[in-house]
Amino acid sequence: MAQRGTDTTPEDAGAEASKARLRMWLRMLKSTRQVEAVLRERLRAEFDTTLPRFDVMAALARYESGLKMSALSGVLRVSNGNVTGIVDRLAEDGIVVRVQVPGDRRASLVRLTRKGQEEFARQAEAHEAWIGELLSDFSAEEADTLSDRFDAVSHKEDET
Amino acid sequence: MAQRGTDTTPEDAGAEASKARLRMWLRMLKSTRQVEAVLRERLRAEFDTTLPRFDVMAALARYESGLKMSALSGVLRVSNGNVTGIVDRLAEDGIVVRVQVPGDRRASLVRLTRKGQEEFARQAEAHEAWIGELLSDFSAEEADTLSDRFDAVSHKEDET
Repeated sequence: MAQRGTDTTPEDAGAEASKARLRMWLRMLKSTRQVEAVLRERLRAEFDTTLPRFDVMAALARYESGLKMSALSGVLRVSNGNVTGIVDRLAEDGIVVRVQVPGDRRASLVRLTRKGQEEFARQAEAHEAWIGELLSDFSAEEADTLSDRFDAVSHKEDET
Repeated sequence: MAQRGTDTTPEDAGAEASKARLRMWLRMLKSTRQVEAVLRERLRAEFDTTLPRFDVMAALARYESGLKMSALSGVLRVSNGNVTGIVDRLAEDGIVVRVQVPGDRRASLVRLTRKGQEEFARQAEAHEAWIGELLSDFSAEEADTLSDRFDAVSHKEDET
């Protein structure tokens, strides 16, 4: 849009806010992807693992008695197929076990083994330290404020 | 860590900042994924297109004379294979054309056609309006501030 002198009309202000939000979104997306790229690289180098494996273990760590595959897929928002492959590999590595659901022969739960819990504790500690370093420009107060602001975004979308 | 009375040691403060940054990261990631999910759904419903297609068109819209496939992959940070499939489909739909690079028989550039430019203009306008709506809790000033803060994250990672 061409400059229309120094007067600012409500339309200009709206267009400006819209551009500012778009710029914010593109930079938020870029920094999110960059942090994820660093996490992927470090998980590979230091733990010989992947971000989806870490995410599956993180989800299981929150449910000590285990999760059904369908619930695990829901938590991760990835396709059932992917989760199945990841869980198969984690089971081969002794990180998770499948346990039968009492009274439901067709359903099984996945849960971390003792070894899986210990391995996840090590990875989670490193992960937290990496995030602390990558976001070290944000003070604790600023991080708390932004946590609330991002929640507002999540709830906004619940309305759509 | 157990509570150690009301005294706050430097270690406590560091641990608190680390937890705050981790919480911020998890919520930032969640809201980013949720905004992307809304964008995917609306691009599908209103333009019968996908987010990767939109991203390819957005990259090409910034380079009027076209981009090599390798540059396009770099911009998008997705695998060459994926970009190839997307570009093939966009070419079938008359949205992009491949043009020969003068003096390099093996290299070709991809650029938007006139139809592609017009289609992208419509999609980009809708995309900006959706972002404006989804991030409407952020004022123009706040969005500008956050853009700078996210840039700090990106530059942080350049050091790693």
